[in-house]
Amino acid sequence: MRRSTQTQTSLSVATWEQSQCYYSARFLLTWAALLIPEQVAQLWPPLEVAQRTQTSKKLVNTVAGCADEALAGLVACNPHLQLLQGHRVALRSDLDSLKGRVALLSGGGSGHEPAHTGFIGKGMLTGVIAGAVFTSPAVGSILAAIRAVAQAGTAGTLLIVKNYTGDRLNFGLAREQARAEGIPVEMVVVGDDSAFTVLKKAGRRGLCGTVLIHKVAGALAEAGVGLEEITNRVSVVAKAMGTLGVSLSSCSVPGSRPTFELSPDEVELGLGIHGEAGVRRIKMASADEIVTLMLDHMTNSSNVSHVPVQSGSSVVLMVNNLGGLSFLELGIVADAAVRSLEGRGVKIARALVGTFMSALEMPGISLTLLLVDEPLLKLIDAETTASAWPNVAKVSVTGRKRSRAAPAEPLEVPDTTAAGASASQQVALVLERVCATLLGLEEHLNALDRAAGDGDCGTTHSRAARAIQGWLKEGPPPGSPAQLLSKLSLLLLEKMGGSSGALYGLFLTAAAQPLKAKTDLPAWSAAMEAGLEAMQKYGKAAPGDRTMLDSLWAAGQELQAWKSPGASLLHVLTKAVQSAEAAAEATKTMEAGAGRASYISSARLDQPDPGAVAAAAILRAILEALQGPGA
Amino acid sequence: MRRSTQTQTSLSVATWEQSQCYYSARFLLTWAALLIPEQVAQLWPPLEVAQRTQTSKKLVNTVAGCADEALAGLVACNPHLQLLQGHRVALRSDLDSLKGRVALLSGGGSGHEPAHTGFIGKGMLTGVIAGAVFTSPAVGSILAAIRAVAQAGTAGTLLIVKNYTGDRLNFGLAREQARAEGIPVEMVVVGDDSAFTVLKKAGRRGLCGTVLIHKVAGALAEAGVGLEEITNRVSVVAKAMGTLGVSLSSCSVPGSRPTFELSPDEVELGLGIHGEAGVRRIKMASADEIVTLMLDHMTNSSNVSHVPVQSGSSVVLMVNNLGGLSFLELGIVADAAVRSLEGRGVKIARALVGTFMSALEMPGISLTLLLVDEPLLKLIDAETTASAWPNVAKVSVTGRKRSRAAPAEPLEVPDTTAAGASASQQVALVLERVCATLLGLEEHLNALDRAAGDGDCGTTHSRAARAIQGWLKEGPPPGSPAQLLSKLSLLLLEKMGGSSGALYGLFLTAAAQPLKAKTDLPAWSAAMEAGLEAMQKYGKAAPGDRTMLDSLWAAGQELQAWKSPGASLLHVLTKAVQSAEAAAEATKTMEAGAGRASYISSARLDQPDPGAVAAAAILRAILEALQGPGA
Repeated sequence: MRRSTQTQTSLSVATWEQSQCYYSARFLLTWAALLIPEQVAQLWPPLEVAQRTQTSKKLVNTVAGCADEALAGLVACNPHLQLLQGHRVALRSDLDSLKGRVALLSGGGSGHEPAHTGFIGKGMLTGVIAGAVFTSPAVGSILAAIRAVAQAGTAGTLLIVKNYTGDRLNFGLAREQARAEGIPVEMVVVGDDSAFTVLKKAGRRGLCGTVLIHKVAGALAEAGVGLEEITNRVSVVAKAMGTLGVSLSSCSVPGSRPTFELSPDEVELGLGIHGEAGVRRIKMASADEIVTLMLDHMTNSSNVSHVPVQSGSSVVLMVNNLGGLSFLELGIVADAAVRSLEGRGVKIARALVGTFMSALEMPGISLTLLLVDEPLLKLIDAETTASAWPNVAKVSVTGRKRSRAAPAEPLEVPDTTAAGASASQQVALVLERVCATLLGLEEHLNALDRAAGDGDCGTTHSRAARAIQGWLKEGPPPGSPAQLLSKLSLLLLEKMGGSSGALYGLFLTAAAQPLKAKTDLPAWSAAMEAGLEAMQKYGKAAPGDRTMLDSLWAAGQELQAWKSPGASLLHVLTKAVQSAEAAAEATKTMEAGAGRASYISSARLDQPDPGAVAAAAILRAILEALQGPGA
Repeated sequence: MRRSTQTQTSLSVATWEQSQCYYSARFLLTWAALLIPEQVAQLWPPLEVAQRTQTSKKLVNTVAGCADEALAGLVACNPHLQLLQGHRVALRSDLDSLKGRVALLSGGGSGHEPAHTGFIGKGMLTGVIAGAVFTSPAVGSILAAIRAVAQAGTAGTLLIVKNYTGDRLNFGLAREQARAEGIPVEMVVVGDDSAFTVLKKAGRRGLCGTVLIHKVAGALAEAGVGLEEITNRVSVVAKAMGTLGVSLSSCSVPGSRPTFELSPDEVELGLGIHGEAGVRRIKMASADEIVTLMLDHMTNSSNVSHVPVQSGSSVVLMVNNLGGLSFLELGIVADAAVRSLEGRGVKIARALVGTFMSALEMPGISLTLLLVDEPLLKLIDAETTASAWPNVAKVSVTGRKRSRAAPAEPLEVPDTTAAGASASQQVALVLERVCATLLGLEEHLNALDRAAGDGDCGTTHSRAARAIQGWLKEGPPPGSPAQLLSKLSLLLLEKMGGSSGALYGLFLTAAAQPLKAKTDLPAWSAAMEAGLEAMQKYGKAAPGDRTMLDSLWAAGQELQAWKSPGASLLHVLTKAVQSAEAAAEATKTMEAGAGRASYISSARLDQPDPGAVAAAAILRAILEALQGPGA
């Protein structure tokens, strides 16, 4: 019996020493030390290093209860599962439907969720035996699970075991005991790790590829295939895959500190799923570079644990979140992996992206490649009710069109409203006046904005003015009001930018609609209404909130008068401008909107809102232009 | 126009300033500042706080390319999807099959994966428009997506928008423009946030519950329901839900620092999905306490944004990983949520546990409750091909049996071998001799173990000896060899513990099998073979690795002689013991196994292996006992 003396001396926190996990870790260490010391050196440096003087923040109740509660939660939320009383075992609740079929049991330490519980279901596992975090499950519980599925009338059990010493021994022991009771039990040990380039006594570790074995075995069992044939077939499949992990940082077992340390510019390559360090540290690089390096390593034929993938090979690709990486990064890695593999001439038959076999909250990924042919793909594609198996499209990833052409811009709708050269000319005059006005106000608006914001309101409006001036130089503007407002909307959206651009864009787009059929004064009144409605609806500002809406709203109220028969364009517009100016001035003393007050609580709001001032000024410019050069 | 001046001054890193994200954030801020300043204060304190002098480690290529590449990766891996060229848009690749059906588009900033791309598929979304990280998508891209689905012959489009100002405005603008082109487009703004107890001008934020709206709308669209009816029905559903988040830490936008800081004993309650701080900080507590607090807050009728869940209510529960929490903790939280809700008399109709709507790598969760009736459940249960929608059992979570009784221990198989009182007596004598021998060797074995391990090998074997002595006191041991070895196996497994216990357990369980039918010398030889085979098979140690196996293996070779007709029990056993002792001694100079050498590289291996010495001593004790008292 060998056990590292350092292990004992470095465990200094009482709660850790008293915990299940501690004993579990010690147990595992003991095992490992006896049989695979080299592995241990890779697996457990942190026990010496971390000193465990401080533990990581975790959303748990007790360290000792973690594995039980996590399993209970996943079982509670999946009515297809049941716990086996007195054991950390989850089983399909419809065991009785499995008479005459082969039962599939898997499991191992907790901390790899959704593995293995998430893969219980029709077409995948029959049940799972979970150990404490990162610790092999108890022999008695494995045996109880075997007995339970046997009692349900299943035709023998296949144990699918990840290649770790503790799992191999405990599942092996349960198997021998079950066989002694006359239950037919076979065992497949999965070792898909492609990290180690030279042969290790303990063999390749069992990693994420194990989930594919669950799937393949599950499909075979569901199809009624016998124990011996399933065992033989999955043993062959298990040899045709490789997995490699990489992580930006480590993870920590509940109640303990992170299992290793990485500097900000390093990543760990070739790690397992127990927080152990990997085969080497590399400098932080781009996702593309790291993925290329991983695929090179995994498929390099001088690596004894490589997967023989080459140009022309057909593979299933798994991009597995080791736990704490953002799904955004997972997508980036998936993109890099697909490009890199296809660049090597590899055909990706199926791709799975998600969290399958985690190492607690480790911010890293593993890539798994499984060589496939059509019969094997059928098994991967077979239906399953397992909650964590994703919806995978049953068509090849490689060789299909990944994009479609964007639709062309719609053709301009022929303008049914009268719009001659003179209309266009008048529009140009109005717009030039508006632009001149805004340019003239730039400093004033900026000054107003400085009192409560960042002082660029004038700049923004000047940018819009210059964009319109530039546009006018390109040719005469549309004389049709609907087309005019639509064009201006796009222009402001693109060139004015920011909030004002989007809000004016929204206003103009909505306002253009009523002007498509008619362009009389009631239509213009309706246009104003539509614009104001859109601005409020999507922007959620209301009159009185100290925004540009205040002036426009006040004007809109006056412009209602255009709906009356015989209303005067200029007379009503004049009143509207006056009302808008008054509203802009009134923002000076206006109670700030619900949100506003708290945001600029320190600013003295004794100046009018620059957005409201600008809107009123635009309206006046329009009025003056319409009144003619002498106005 | 208002924008926080602090925002400008605090942005000090050039790469950040030059990035898309920076401009996106500024744009969002600008928007937010104009309309929902209070929201902004909650959303973006980190822009001032973090100073962004150092960025977080991320598995990306470029900051600017994050959103594009993540989307490309998810689309590449799902052949059911296609990108729309020139836009950050993903669409179902079978658009042509949707003629006459309503199209459903959603989206928003990136960084929430698998939302929203993962929810594209038959029975869920038709397409998704993604912005830069945490930034509203471009109006032009939203419009392009609307046009694309319209051109495919769909009967109108429903935009499903999370309630954030930028999304509301950009989707709204695209909607107005599309309507101007004659495309029927409706828009549902989802606000499911239950964090704010008083009414906010901007309304409740859109969070994880949005995914349920995708599901419900998707089921309706797939069933051929019209645009208006879908809009009306999902608007009602959207009002019947609430979501609340909690996190142990923040997240960081690629290229920037974490968005807020938390001390080790604090958690953030009521946060959104953009790394913004929440409504309050609470002291770190147990999962049960935090979940209870969350559910209290979400269902408290004095909270204006509560979801009216009470005793008797039927709900769909979502336990959503905000990104970086371990799935183990997710299970623990799910367990706590189920217990807490059922304790309130709430019936959980369905429960979804996983990553649905993330905030990059934020290590937190959100809980969503949706009030449901049977018709709504049918929509939740409807089939979908969306890759990130999990397999959810179509039966109620509450009210079904979550565990089943473990099977009883099998009855003892009647012993068919002769086993009288005299046999039992002889067994007792042998075992007593073995125990006495091991107790006598305790110090010696510990001393040997100290040279290369932690010095408790003798202690472990003594523990086994005392366990056997105690067992012998309880009554006479079985005279049947098979029963004897099986009982000893269980005893050592339980009481000896550790590696030796499991390995001896394995050895004895396997060895017992050949002795069930016969107990003659050839059967004992076969028993030794079976034991050695099991030990090697599951333990992966081989002769020559400096373990207990070395002695046992040597003995086993000699015991082959028992298979010859007329072989002598004692003569062969004597040679076996001598051979075992020689093998134990030979471990002294034995080249350490591949793994061993590196593990105890500093230890001088000039003593025999204590495990091998103990095994040889056990064999000699058996021999001496069989030789009788005079030996």
